[in-house]
Amino acid sequence: MTTATWPDHGGDAAALLKRFRLPADHPFEDVSANLNPLGPPPWVADWLVECISGLSRYPEPSYRAARRAIAEYEGVAPEQVLLTNGGADAIFLAAALHTGQRGLIVTPTFGEYARACAAHRLVVTEHALEAPRFGLQTAALDEPVTQADVIFLCRPNNPTGTLVSAVEIERMLSCMPTTATLVVDEAFIDLALDAEPLTPLLAHYPQLVLLRSMTKFYTLPGLRLGYVLASAEHVAALACHQPPWSVNHLAAELVAPLLADTAFAQRTRQWLAREQPRLGQALTHAGLDVVPSHSCFYLVRPGPALCQRGLSSALLLERLLHHGMLARHTYSFAALDGDWLRLAVRDGSANDRLLKVLHDCVR
Amino acid sequence: MTTATWPDHGGDAAALLKRFRLPADHPFEDVSANLNPLGPPPWVADWLVECISGLSRYPEPSYRAARRAIAEYEGVAPEQVLLTNGGADAIFLAAALHTGQRGLIVTPTFGEYARACAAHRLVVTEHALEAPRFGLQTAALDEPVTQADVIFLCRPNNPTGTLVSAVEIERMLSCMPTTATLVVDEAFIDLALDAEPLTPLLAHYPQLVLLRSMTKFYTLPGLRLGYVLASAEHVAALACHQPPWSVNHLAAELVAPLLADTAFAQRTRQWLAREQPRLGQALTHAGLDVVPSHSCFYLVRPGPALCQRGLSSALLLERLLHHGMLARHTYSFAALDGDWLRLAVRDGSANDRLLKVLHDCVR
Repeated sequence: MTTATWPDHGGDAAALLKRFRLPADHPFEDVSANLNPLGPPPWVADWLVECISGLSRYPEPSYRAARRAIAEYEGVAPEQVLLTNGGADAIFLAAALHTGQRGLIVTPTFGEYARACAAHRLVVTEHALEAPRFGLQTAALDEPVTQADVIFLCRPNNPTGTLVSAVEIERMLSCMPTTATLVVDEAFIDLALDAEPLTPLLAHYPQLVLLRSMTKFYTLPGLRLGYVLASAEHVAALACHQPPWSVNHLAAELVAPLLADTAFAQRTRQWLAREQPRLGQALTHAGLDVVPSHSCFYLVRPGPALCQRGLSSALLLERLLHHGMLARHTYSFAALDGDWLRLAVRDGSANDRLLKVLHDCVR
Repeated sequence: MTTATWPDHGGDAAALLKRFRLPADHPFEDVSANLNPLGPPPWVADWLVECISGLSRYPEPSYRAARRAIAEYEGVAPEQVLLTNGGADAIFLAAALHTGQRGLIVTPTFGEYARACAAHRLVVTEHALEAPRFGLQTAALDEPVTQADVIFLCRPNNPTGTLVSAVEIERMLSCMPTTATLVVDEAFIDLALDAEPLTPLLAHYPQLVLLRSMTKFYTLPGLRLGYVLASAEHVAALACHQPPWSVNHLAAELVAPLLADTAFAQRTRQWLAREQPRLGQALTHAGLDVVPSHSCFYLVRPGPALCQRGLSSALLLERLLHHGMLARHTYSFAALDGDWLRLAVRDGSANDRLLKVLHDCVR
């Protein structure tokens, strides 16, 4: 079974149903997407309806109002903020800044860093974290860090859920030449437990570029909305590679009211603090190897006892889908080669349904 | 008066009002944006409202349904279609394919070709068309065409409205090495009079890449929606440079129903055939130099008699704005340096209002 036979993106349900010869209308719950199950906030639909008439005008080219709202929320200057067409857009912009240079990617991780580096002809080295815990030994990175022009690191890491501490990030930054870039993709940082902010480091390290998504926390991935936080110089350089009007009107209009909805943010934190550890423990009890995660998803594989009974991750994926649960395969994650599955933390009853199905699948 | 003191994008009304010390709430009509005044089609708002719940899912990564609808509409294969985040996105993708190589831009034209080439470090030569008619002498291009890796040409050209014929395009293609690319930006082709289609050339010339916009004709620039038509190989190469989920869910969902609305297309063609020549003649009668345009906008400047009375394009822009008409300055168009203004063709009564104000401004 080769990588090529799997869809590039795990959430491509149609391709997976076809692969397993299930009908196109086979009912399933999506456990593959790492999205906040509480969102979108209930007022969003009405807000969007009110904004629809604005689609007949071009967005204001510099997105002043949205950038100002983010700057206030993050405690940085508006010149340190760049709005992007989702988080993926920012990854490609960061790679473009280092066309033809040397890239370092901490793996296993989101496949788009490698795709972006390939598109912009970077020579890439991978620093592979070791299964089954995938912890980062920063000392082992001291040498590679000095040799790269751009480093991609995901925090918390997709798909492992592991979290590099602020101290370790600062250690890496202090080893790096000032012309290099450390791209820390924090697409899931607002869906992470015990995560110290890196924004204070921006004032001291011009190499630091933080990528953020607004569509996972607010459950609006179809809208495409993310942003970059970096030095004003770094933001200006990234903006040179960005086509004009990259962010659609509705996304830009939503920035300020989304950030202002503190009640939604609080409900989300309460849900995560309750369900994240509960699901992790239950997955372990079900006989799975579970990578210690700080975020709203778990990387898992059948543990030794289940493996002995012939249960592979590929087989588990197929059984789960037959039972109506679409998990995320890991063929498109460098260095995982499908040996693991990723499962999203959802709301309490949805997690219970997954655990029940899982129980049937591992019997 | 230097370029730096003008906003980069002509439609940045807030910056222009500030420049001319007008209040931020100074009322004006926008004559700067080249958009179909008949749109969006009346059913679009309701359709978008129905699609809003889909924003909580990722778009299907390959946009199969939208690409199939475009392929059928254009008479090409779905593999020859790439959906893009507006037309500007496609320009940057095309430049990225030729990073560090030699670019040729036919000017004066849309500023984003030069910006995209600069971002991707192309060495650019400009082929400048001559005022006041800005006609293309293809014989003069025979030599430069053989020396470029990528050529950017806009058809009809923004901001002149001039249209290169299919015969001339084929002549250029036949001179080009097969490894080179001719990017013909047809963002306004569906808002052009007497334009022969270039799609039949796609079957014979792998160098040809056509860029299309769906947001000018349907008056939805805030939505961001465009597409590329090219050989399957060219489309695959461009797709490698495109971040995943580049096109938002609402834009992707609108593709098929927009293309199916033939009544709207017919109304638009009738309006254009009526108002485009009428406005052009009236602008000439008002004493302006008017570039012969095939599209829904005119490049104009005060004619000799008005110049003698001290009326420059900059002064005319200022007077028009004072009278509530926002024209498009041309400082951001290579080789025009603000010497001209661009005026959009709007509906009959709006054109009458512009002509009345213009009459007051040139007295």
